[in-house]
This record gives sequence, structure tokens and C-alpha cells, in this order.
Amino acid sequence: MTGVDGRGDRYVVGVDFGTLSGRALVVRVGDGAELGTAVHEYRHGVMESRLPDGVPLPPDWALQDPEDYRDVLRQAVPAAVAAAGIDPARVIGVATDFTACTVLPTLVDGTPLCEVPELRSRPHAWVKLWKHHAGQPHADRINALAHERREPWLDRYGGKISAEWQFAKGLQILDEDPEVYRRAARFVEAADWIVWQLCGVETRNICTAGYKGIRQDGRYPSREFLAALDPGFADFVAKLDGPLLPMGARAGALTVQAAAWTGLPEGIAVAAGNVDAHVTAASAQALVPGHLVAIMGTSTCHVVNGAALAEVPGMCGVVEGGLSPGAWGYEAGQSGVGDIFGWFVEHAAPAGADSHERLSELAAAQPVGAHGLIALDWWNGNRSLLVNHDLSGLVVGLTLATRPADVYRALLEATAYGTRMIIEAFVAAGVPVRELVVAGGLTANRLLMQIYSDVTNRPLSLIGSAQGPALGSAIHAAVAAGAYPDVYAASAAMGRVDRDAYRPDPERARAYDALYAEYRSLHDHFGRGGDDVMSRLRAIRNAALDRSAARATTPLEVVA
Amino acid sequence: MTGVDGRGDRYVVGVDFGTLSGRALVVRVGDGAELGTAVHEYRHGVMESRLPDGVPLPPDWALQDPEDYRDVLRQAVPAAVAAAGIDPARVIGVATDFTACTVLPTLVDGTPLCEVPELRSRPHAWVKLWKHHAGQPHADRINALAHERREPWLDRYGGKISAEWQFAKGLQILDEDPEVYRRAARFVEAADWIVWQLCGVETRNICTAGYKGIRQDGRYPSREFLAALDPGFADFVAKLDGPLLPMGARAGALTVQAAAWTGLPEGIAVAAGNVDAHVTAASAQALVPGHLVAIMGTSTCHVVNGAALAEVPGMCGVVEGGLSPGAWGYEAGQSGVGDIFGWFVEHAAPAGADSHERLSELAAAQPVGAHGLIALDWWNGNRSLLVNHDLSGLVVGLTLATRPADVYRALLEATAYGTRMIIEAFVAAGVPVRELVVAGGLTANRLLMQIYSDVTNRPLSLIGSAQGPALGSAIHAAVAAGAYPDVYAASAAMGRVDRDAYRPDPERARAYDALYAEYRSLHDHFGRGGDDVMSRLRAIRNAALDRSAARATTPLEVVA
Repeated sequence: MTGVDGRGDRYVVGVDFGTLSGRALVVRVGDGAELGTAVHEYRHGVMESRLPDGVPLPPDWALQDPEDYRDVLRQAVPAAVAAAGIDPARVIGVATDFTACTVLPTLVDGTPLCEVPELRSRPHAWVKLWKHHAGQPHADRINALAHERREPWLDRYGGKISAEWQFAKGLQILDEDPEVYRRAARFVEAADWIVWQLCGVETRNICTAGYKGIRQDGRYPSREFLAALDPGFADFVAKLDGPLLPMGARAGALTVQAAAWTGLPEGIAVAAGNVDAHVTAASAQALVPGHLVAIMGTSTCHVVNGAALAEVPGMCGVVEGGLSPGAWGYEAGQSGVGDIFGWFVEHAAPAGADSHERLSELAAAQPVGAHGLIALDWWNGNRSLLVNHDLSGLVVGLTLATRPADVYRALLEATAYGTRMIIEAFVAAGVPVRELVVAGGLTANRLLMQIYSDVTNRPLSLIGSAQGPALGSAIHAAVAAGAYPDVYAASAAMGRVDRDAYRPDPERARAYDALYAEYRSLHDHFGRGGDDVMSRLRAIRNAALDRSAARATTPLEVVA
Repeated sequence: MTGVDGRGDRYVVGVDFGTLSGRALVVRVGDGAELGTAVHEYRHGVMESRLPDGVPLPPDWALQDPEDYRDVLRQAVPAAVAAAGIDPARVIGVATDFTACTVLPTLVDGTPLCEVPELRSRPHAWVKLWKHHAGQPHADRINALAHERREPWLDRYGGKISAEWQFAKGLQILDEDPEVYRRAARFVEAADWIVWQLCGVETRNICTAGYKGIRQDGRYPSREFLAALDPGFADFVAKLDGPLLPMGARAGALTVQAAAWTGLPEGIAVAAGNVDAHVTAASAQALVPGHLVAIMGTSTCHVVNGAALAEVPGMCGVVEGGLSPGAWGYEAGQSGVGDIFGWFVEHAAPAGADSHERLSELAAAQPVGAHGLIALDWWNGNRSLLVNHDLSGLVVGLTLATRPADVYRALLEATAYGTRMIIEAFVAAGVPVRELVVAGGLTANRLLMQIYSDVTNRPLSLIGSAQGPALGSAIHAAVAAGAYPDVYAASAAMGRVDRDAYRPDPERARAYDALYAEYRSLHDHFGRGGDDVMSRLRAIRNAALDRSAARATTPLEVVA
């Protein structure tokens, strides 16, 4: 135990805001012991087809209700404290982490526009969740112009910014609902908005400002660039900018109102906002350069610290201090991972083979390559290395002898190949990746973990906590409260990792090399312009659905 | 009714030998009325993994037991006559049709080698069913040498012979079991073998000799060519050749033994052997040049008569008199059609959406293109235009929003695109295709029929009989018995067609043009050498399964 005198009976609370729910975790400051946790499911979940009042949403939209986030503070935090059985008076700090880029327009005081009564039926007034992908055309415009103008920040994002990020989402609002754009005095990451709710002070954190807000070398994209995109967009940075805080900094003190919501003491430290994936590097003791953390859930986020700046084609971004002060934090990601496995079980597995357990058991019995399949894992687009959400999934090698566990295993493998593509891009650009540290819900699938170790031919360590992000937030809360001098010391004392839990089998690793070569060749053909069929099929699909909504087409009247 | 005096109360029996069962049909000679039918399921079905005594079979094998064919004569024929309620003494002829190329090695008297006790455990002694695809390497050798030597017959088969055919299957026997090859005095199509069983006379029919036996312009491939493949193969034609009969000819008289099996009168006409698909052109009144018959079941066979000889790249074959005397009969095919839809329902559709009816109903409600998917329909390889059974299925465009009916519809459409590829190849080579006539079990799926009409932008006629092949055989029996002067007259009197049952919708046809362009581009990329990933994946699969069978690999020990 690395505690100092008196730390042993002080506590911090980490709150992790995920895609479908928020979780609070009470942690002992001295040793990181997890004492109690509680989850609150968002009442509105992810809104993909309509607003609460029934207004329909186009394809590729994904919205949330900010009131659901406040409910996490009201419900999950007191429940976690109660579950821990501690005296709330001994809690010295609270910190949060969030999905990102999840972003909302607000009034100048932080009131979400969707809570302004006359804007409640306007889709663009709501929170755009990270997986809102309808801004792809806007991202395309931003990328095209940035390439044309050789914008200096572009290479920090692998040569492409994502449709998921603040500028694409902001430009979509301006394009499609200029009034909402105009009313948005502030355009703020949910990660920063929740901190604002807790301490009453508007701040911006280095992490989302850099990875999602294109802030590099102390600057956002220039007014000239934004005006060239659209004269009305020239003022966008004014809506974004704010006092910038490094990771682990104290953003302010818990307000009376937030103390009433949470049951925590008024005035305790509230840490700067953070991102669920990035904060997990601290809980997995993986802030050391070369330790790549893969946070594997519905999607996967990869983060790794590097000692120096490198520009890696196709990564999500590199931000100085983005993971922790004094290092360059690199981020990459895969937009669909657990989501794809879940899709398969729900929509493509026949009765009798429709559980992860049964499919994994059948799939584990196969030798490498015996199913004869390769999949491209782009069911939810490709975040790295291709940064294109118009890409889609592919399966090749299907025969009449193909069985559900064959396809399931091919999907597990496809995501492992995707991770290997990312690792190889880092290594080729001079960012070392010596070790894989896996966190997230998918660590429980032993077959999947072994496949990742075999495919990447690297030992695999597992985070020692089932609540990686919430623990990571608690670590940052402890730093913000002054219990540790910095995030490194707090991570060493409070984080946990199970070193080399899986090791690659040389024979299977060799067999996977051949299959990975096929994956890479399909990846490049369909992802790098050899055949843009995926984008064309998506355009055909969207046009067909538009026409159909407009009742301009004649679907088949026949039934079988 | 086109009958002549006295025809009205005379009957013929057509017997159709399919993949899983044989069907007998009693038909009135005068007007083709179907009076009674009966089916006998083969006791051994298709043997794909082991022989009846447990001897295991490698991947891609498909065998049958000839005794199952005799059982059809013993069971189905008397049952059909009983069901018809006719006096068997009024039956004047019997004819058969068979799957092809389905072929077996026999002693000189026609005894199948698998019925020779000491050869019963030898896989190569059994009937190789049409879909036995393990001879692909042998077909590859034959094609490579034929190209090198510019063999004159090669262009009659679209530039490639199939792994399904007599020469590939024969060469595989020579390679893998030379003793069985040596003991095979005769190597005979099941279509001719069953006629031999009925009338005691060994004959060969023009249809299978041409389409499956590479007989062109009165000659088989030369002894020099065969010797160049393998010196031991030089005598292969001697095992194949025999008295050749045109379609509708009388092969002989029903023997005492066959009369005892069937309950039909000894001495009645037995027609020359025929093929299930080809014989259906007669029952659909589609012997007219330009009427393409698609017989759609587990697989699809396309046949069309042409007035002149043309060489069509990628078709199965063109044979003078192959469908009917005096015309050039063209054949093409798709190796997997209904088989693929059945695979999907059995192995890829979740509970609640796992019936053709439900999936078709959901799929029919979609506008064209709304699912955003394209599939390549090669689950069972590609017979035309690529003639490659190492190809496999592909689906592209999958997203988290993809639902089972989307994929199901994409599979229906993929087979329609495959048919359109074939039609366009015929037309481009100068073989007119004015009308599509569809026969077979899949005619019952109205959604599928409408999709074929829309995709091909042609009116679709349906055969007027649910027993197209058996009725076609009955028509040939009537000709062999002398009741009609030729197959054309018998087809006109006894066949049936429902003209233009489906018509294309111009808007849907236009929408399909764009999707078909994507299909064609993927077809050419994966099928014509742009990326041979499918063949490589199959090789990897086969090697993995081999090693696994030899216990040389380490499958994963973990389970989830």
C-alpha cells in the first residue's frame, strides 16, 4: 500500500458515463480498493429513430437526453456510496469520464438547447452521441478543404478528421438547422458539460479539446479555414473555447445543488472532464510509453503514450498531455467490436446457437483457418485506419458448409486483425507498442482474448478491475483532491493489471499471418479506393429509404 | 387436345431421378394430362461425409448408392400407376431423366463397382453425384492442358470444362484409386445406366455425351490429349463410348426383370437417357430458339435452343441436338440457388424469422436497394460464367442495422444477377434470349419470380406443370413409343406454359441496373483474377482440416 498517513480512510468517487448507462464507483484513496458501485440506465437510451415526442430521425443519427446524465448523479452516486457503506463526509473528490465525442449545444449558462421549450422538437438541439454518423458529408468537406489548404493540424489526426467529432457535428447543425446553430452560445463536450453541472464552472479538458476539437499547439483551426468552409462557421471556435485544464486538474468545487443531487460534501474537488477510454490507461497502470491499452466494449478505443511526437497515418489523433501530462497521447479506434458480436447473436444466429457462450465454445474447437472465412469488421464503419463511416461489413468464403460458429469466429478474428492493423501503423510510424493491455467488458471472453494474443503475436495483459473507466476517474479525483502529486503516482498506487494473462501460440500466430495478409488486402481494396462499392451501396440505400419515406417508389406488392 | 385417334386412353410413364429422391409420373399420351405420381426418397440420400460402412470422405465429395435408383423403379413407378388408377397394360412407354453429370464405374455388364464386395469400402467405386466437386484440381489440369494444346472442343464449353464432368471425375479416380479405375470396364452416366437397367442394352444419349462427356463433332477428346494428361488415362474414351442415341429415340424394350420391378408391360418402349433440366424444355413448350428455360431448384440449369452454333464464353456447353434434334442446345447453370436460400433459413436466420414465408414477406416490403447489400451467390461455387467451384459466397454492405430479411433478399437478388450475367453472355455471343421460362420448385416464391423479372427486365413465363422433368420424360416416352413423330410435336401436345406470368416494373428494373453493375464488378474482381482470395481461403481451410484430422495442430483449449 502506497498510502500516506490518513489516506486509508479517505475516499473518492469516479463516475463513468457510458453509451447506455452511467456508473458510480467509490474507491479508497490509499490503495484503490473498490468499495461500492451502482449503475443507472439512461431512461432514453440512444435515440436513433425518433425524439421523445415522436419526431422521426434520419439514418445514422444517434442522440441522447442530458437529463439522463443528471439522473446518474442523482441515482447512481448515492447508491454507490450506500453500497460502499462509507461515511460520505470522508469523500474528498469526484471525477467523471464520458463517451466522446458526445457533444451538445447550450445557452451561455450551460442549459442544453433541447431543454429550451421551443427547441425541444428540433433534432439538432439534442446531444449528439459519439456514434451519430450523419455528419459524414460534413467531415468529408472539412477533410477535402483541409487537404487543399494543407492545414497544419491535419497530420495530427492521421490525415482525416472523423464524422464523429465536434467540427463535423457542428457544421452539420449549421447546415441543417441554422437557428439552432445561432442559439448555441456554447458547443460543449458532454465530458465538460457534466463537470460544469457539478462545479458550476465552465472548463474544457485538454483531452477532448485535442482529440475531438482539433486543438493543436495551443490553437484551434483558423477563422479563415472555417470561413472558407462556410462564412457562417467562422465563429465556431468562439462557441468551443474555454479555460483549458490538464488531466487530473481541479476544475472547481462541488456546488450546493450538485451536493444535494449526489449526497457528497459541498466544496470537495471536482476534476477536469475526461474520456472513458483515456482515463482507463491510469487504472490499468498503462501510462508507460509502449503499453497500448485497448478498451474493448461495443467499440474499441486504443490509447498509448509516446515519449515523442510522431504522425501516424489513419490514427484518431495525437495530443500533447492528452492521456497524462508530459507525454504525447495517441488514440486509435475501431467503431464496431462487441456491437458486431451482439448483432450476430441477435440477428444472424439460428435458434440453438444464439448465445455468445455456445458460439464461443463451438468456435474454440476449430483449428485456425478451418472455417475458410475472412470478414471486414466495418459493421459500424471504420474509425482507424480509414476514418470512414460509410464503409460497411463484408464476409467472404461462405459455403453451404458454413455454420454459425464459423462466422462468429471470423467476426472475432476480424476485429483482432483490425487491432493488428492499428498496432502495425503505430510501429511503422515510430511509436513503440511493446505490450497490449486489454480493458472493458470483452475481457471476459477467453476465446477472444486468446485470438487477440495469437493474431497480434504479443502477450496480453488484462486490467485488474471490472470498472476500468470509473476507477480511472476515481484516480483522477484523488489527484484533483491533492492526495497524490500527479496521475502517475496515483495510477501506480490505485491501478491494477494482470500481467501477461494470455500468451501467443507460435503455430497459431503463424497460421494467422496468412489470414491477416488476406484481411489486409481486402481492407486496402475496399477501404483505400480499389472499389468504393460500400459507399455507393450506402448512397443507394439512403436514396431508396428517402424515396420510400416520400412514398415515391413502388415496393413489391407480392408476398411469397 | 392435339391427340390422334386412340391416343386418349394410352399412357406413358416419366421417371425423374433428382438429388434426394426419384419421382414417377403417369401421363396421358393424347393431352399430357398428369394422372398420378409418386416419390421415393433415396435411402442413402447424398453421402458427403462417410460411406454406409463408415469410411470417411474428404471435403467436397458427394456420392450416391445406385441401389437407391433401382428402388425408385420398384417403389415409385407402381405407386404412381396405382395413384393414376389406370390399367398398366395401357402404358406404351417409359422414359427417365437424371441429374448430371452423375456418373459411375461399372463392370462390363453394368454392375456398379460399389456392388462388387471387395470394392464396397472404396469411395471411388460409388456413384459420383453431380455436386461432387473434389475433382477441381483435375479439371484445372484438363483445362490448362487443353488451353496449351488449343484443343478444338474447348470453346464449345465456354473455354473451361467443369469439375463436375466425366473427365474430371474419371481423372480423379485414376489419380487417387488406380485399381478402381482399372476395374471400371465402363464409366457411365447414371442417365444411361438406368436405361441399361430398364432395357438391358447399353446406350449413350447425345445430351450427356455432349454436355458432360466432351463429345463434339462426332469425337471425344483425342487419345494423345488424354495420354498427355496421364499415360494411364489414354484409354478413358474406350470406357465411355457406346451406341449413341438422339433425344426421344427408343433405346430398347422393357426387360422381364424391369417389368417385374415396375409392374409395367414387358417389351414397351424405353427411351434414351436424358437430363432433368434438358428434358424440361419439352414440358415447358420451350424448344423454340430464344426461349431460355431456367430450371430453378437447389441449383439452376439454363437451357435454350439456338438455330446456329455460337461459342459463348463461360457457358456450360453447346451440343448439336443436345435438347432436341435439329437445333443447337445451349446450357448454362448456377451451382447454388435454392440451396443458398435453404442454408440461410437453416443456419443464418434467428428464431422468429427462420422461414422462407416470413423472410419473403418482410423482404417484399422493401424498396429496391434499401438493404444496402450485394451478395455473390457462390456458396456452392460458380458454374457459369466462371466455371470454378473453388469460388465461395460473399456479402458486402452489412451494418448494425442489417436485418435477416435484408440478407435473405440480397441472396434472392444475387441469384437473379447471376442469371442476368448468363443471359447477357448469350446475347453478346449472338444467341438470342427473348423470353424467360421458369420451371422447378422455386416458381412458388412470388417475390423471387418478380425479382427475376425486374432484374432481367424481361417477362417471365412459368411452366404449367409442377413436375416439369417427369412430364418431359413422359413426352420423350411418347416419342420413343411412336405416338408422335418427334419431340416438337409431342411437346406442343403434351407440354404446358403460363405465358408472361410476371412482368418487369420499369422503375424497379432501373433501380436494379445500378445494383447489378455493382454485382458485375464484384463478380469480375473475385471471379476473374482481380483477387483470388476465395481460392486461397479454400486452400487454407482444406489444409487446416487435413492437419486437424491428422491431430497435428493445437486448436484453442479455451472456452468462453
